[in-house]
Amino acid sequence: MPDVNALSELRSILGPKGYSDDQDVIYPWLTDWRGRFTGAAAALLSPATTQEVAAIVRVAATYRLSLVPQGGNSGMVAGATPNSSGDQLILSMRRMNNITAIDADTGLISCEAGVILQNLHEAAAQAGRRFPLTLGGKGSATVGGLISTNAGGTQVLRHGTMRLLVAGLEAVLPDGSIYDAMAPLKKDNRGYDLKQLLIGGEGTIGVVTKAVLQTVPALIDRCVVWAGVDSPQQAYELLLFMQKHGRDRLEGFEILPQRALNAVLTHISGTRPPLDTTHRWHALMEFVQDDPAQSSPGELAMHLLEDAIADNLLENATIARSDVQAEAFWKIRDSIAEAERAAGAALQHDISVPVAAMARFIEQESPRIEADYPGTKTVAFGHLGDGNIHFHVKAPEGVDIAGWYAGDGKAITSHVYDRVRAYGGSLSAEHGIGQSKIDEFARLGEPARLSALRAIKNAFDPLGIMNPGKLVPLA
Amino acid sequence: MPDVNALSELRSILGPKGYSDDQDVIYPWLTDWRGRFTGAAAALLSPATTQEVAAIVRVAATYRLSLVPQGGNSGMVAGATPNSSGDQLILSMRRMNNITAIDADTGLISCEAGVILQNLHEAAAQAGRRFPLTLGGKGSATVGGLISTNAGGTQVLRHGTMRLLVAGLEAVLPDGSIYDAMAPLKKDNRGYDLKQLLIGGEGTIGVVTKAVLQTVPALIDRCVVWAGVDSPQQAYELLLFMQKHGRDRLEGFEILPQRALNAVLTHISGTRPPLDTTHRWHALMEFVQDDPAQSSPGELAMHLLEDAIADNLLENATIARSDVQAEAFWKIRDSIAEAERAAGAALQHDISVPVAAMARFIEQESPRIEADYPGTKTVAFGHLGDGNIHFHVKAPEGVDIAGWYAGDGKAITSHVYDRVRAYGGSLSAEHGIGQSKIDEFARLGEPARLSALRAIKNAFDPLGIMNPGKLVPLA
Repeated sequence: MPDVNALSELRSILGPKGYSDDQDVIYPWLTDWRGRFTGAAAALLSPATTQEVAAIVRVAATYRLSLVPQGGNSGMVAGATPNSSGDQLILSMRRMNNITAIDADTGLISCEAGVILQNLHEAAAQAGRRFPLTLGGKGSATVGGLISTNAGGTQVLRHGTMRLLVAGLEAVLPDGSIYDAMAPLKKDNRGYDLKQLLIGGEGTIGVVTKAVLQTVPALIDRCVVWAGVDSPQQAYELLLFMQKHGRDRLEGFEILPQRALNAVLTHISGTRPPLDTTHRWHALMEFVQDDPAQSSPGELAMHLLEDAIADNLLENATIARSDVQAEAFWKIRDSIAEAERAAGAALQHDISVPVAAMARFIEQESPRIEADYPGTKTVAFGHLGDGNIHFHVKAPEGVDIAGWYAGDGKAITSHVYDRVRAYGGSLSAEHGIGQSKIDEFARLGEPARLSALRAIKNAFDPLGIMNPGKLVPLA
Repeated sequence: MPDVNALSELRSILGPKGYSDDQDVIYPWLTDWRGRFTGAAAALLSPATTQEVAAIVRVAATYRLSLVPQGGNSGMVAGATPNSSGDQLILSMRRMNNITAIDADTGLISCEAGVILQNLHEAAAQAGRRFPLTLGGKGSATVGGLISTNAGGTQVLRHGTMRLLVAGLEAVLPDGSIYDAMAPLKKDNRGYDLKQLLIGGEGTIGVVTKAVLQTVPALIDRCVVWAGVDSPQQAYELLLFMQKHGRDRLEGFEILPQRALNAVLTHISGTRPPLDTTHRWHALMEFVQDDPAQSSPGELAMHLLEDAIADNLLENATIARSDVQAEAFWKIRDSIAEAERAAGAALQHDISVPVAAMARFIEQESPRIEADYPGTKTVAFGHLGDGNIHFHVKAPEGVDIAGWYAGDGKAITSHVYDRVRAYGGSLSAEHGIGQSKIDEFARLGEPARLSALRAIKNAFDPLGIMNPGKLVPLA
């Protein structure tokens, strides 16, 4: 339990709206999104201004309190969940939810860290623009959390991760100083770019309090295509073809195996197969138009598909004929995680390798795991265009799940990450490290990488008050 | 003078091709590109492999030797020039000049740090691709130097600075470890992105030894336009219009005042005015085609210019009718620095502010300086589309130049940087800090920024052996 004087100082800084030690109020924020980690917190701190955040951090430094920054609590690796000691404090950014400016000329949006992604989308749309990053948790994920986890999603292929969309930011550093890099400078060579460390920093070297975000022109039209393919390799060749000829009109390229499609059709009501032919693998593509001078995406897609079929790059394909049908295609993709969950227990790995190597990874590693661990089934799906897939390994039927997770499950996860490392890849493509992956990261991180991370963490947060236990495996 | 045992160890590691203490050999590398700083070096170290670089750094750590990494020695801020003590060693990366792979599918080029930019351009072109970053020193600038200074140039508007073009890199850190991030992962959320620190790090926390660089499709055609405008503000409105309607077909947008054009016409032989009308300001635009599906850039430019004239966004314009004429337009832009040098002594400031504020900056600050320092003349030219201009202030005629540089000149530079700071801008948009700007950076850098830089420098290089005295103003 933290020092009572510290809590009393925090209460007086934040007032009744910003401070609570009522465990009923705190309770909903103690468990991570996936429900795997539950912690405890002595208080929930909800500052309304950057100055309040700075004041909180100074109190934390004085009393050596651990702060756990939290946005929408929708992270995938328990990076915003406190530990079980009861000594930590949740620093919730949700009250700082103002969108302060939208510049019509440049499309830049200035906002506070607690703005929810969906509200950002709506504000951009009202200004005739689009914020092109989206993901399942958009109704709760906040700008600060998206920045701190360098979030991805299904539009990364064209628009990049959060890193590419942050034009400026403000953060409170662990010494209580305010780092103001809000001016949206396109060029700035004044040394190491601290902004780049805070992006993806998981709140371990500072708390993002504000940001300036780049938007893109609003969509005029889109065209969603579903294609049946024979293999990940064929899907990759299709991707290369579509990128070469469709250029940045191709906004998303996702793959899934027949097994995942079956799970969705079985477990998610109202879904139906886009094609009446069967295929080992499927690709979902979205082509867009955001410039009146461009051809319609439907025309573009039609031409490209004709050529792709002639080049033997796919087996069959269909173009969504309406927005309803387009949404239905995307719903299949977006429901895979839910459907797989309904289909049974599985290990989930969010991994990346170089884009050119991903097809080989899937084709070599999936049968190997299924052979080494009889009864398991692999399901690899997701962002082929980014070299990033979600690699699930389903438990054998009838097995004791808890025992399997602790035994074979653990061994399989280690094996998957070993293989990812052999491909030069990453054991966390878009979810981050948080608490969930810290042990495997410690085991597999190259010594030079881990020692650099530790050096940075210690340089910024020598007292260890900012989200300790997350991201950086300490020596 | 360094320890003789250290030099002997280095000689035996590097052999006669890689080690020289012959001052005739060393001499050409002791003075910076602009000729403002001359240092001394006990030896010139020219490793041929990453392992040799690592061995050098380990010797340097053991004997506390200062290493000054150097590529083409074409930097603008003396960041690769040793100090005058004679204790420092130049670590030249020029022998590591192999282009090791070009991937036809992904367009990724793998190479060593000493590859010269022009050779990279040619290798990309031979593979039917284009490396889109270019600058005046391309015949000598190396990949490692371009990365370490996060180089810019005239194509940044569309393709970004070096930061956006680095898909992977390898570096030797100050403890002699090799940081291998060569796998070109599009997504990788394993904590603070060290790659981002090395980009623009000026060799102060590590030496870049290899890189994987992104290329873009080769150009099919281009169209260069010269426009006369009334003011920077009108040029900015023209920029917004061209970006809105030309999208990423607009690859460059540069501005210059009549004064700069006059200097070029006077001092650079073979140049002639693109327009037969006179204008207070000029804008140079390049539109490109790199996709067969796109309209020709000439057609595009013609339509856009018609609409821009109708909207009163420019006074007059001409389209280059041949590649020869296009080159002649660009030659005017590229000769400004040389012409201004010939026209007389001037202070040079490479500055940025938010793009939307640059016109106001020029229009407000230029007359203010000319009024406060009678006889001076300002010349602001360059990358309006990036919010980055080169802001020159010419000395009054007939003044004693050395005395002026030390007196009014110094005061003017401080004033310019003060004003840049008031606009939230950067005193180094693309050249870096090096030695030239370190004092002004120390004076003007926000405390949180400077203390973060120092913390990072000390965390990586506690012995202070990597390019000491550059980039980071130590407390």
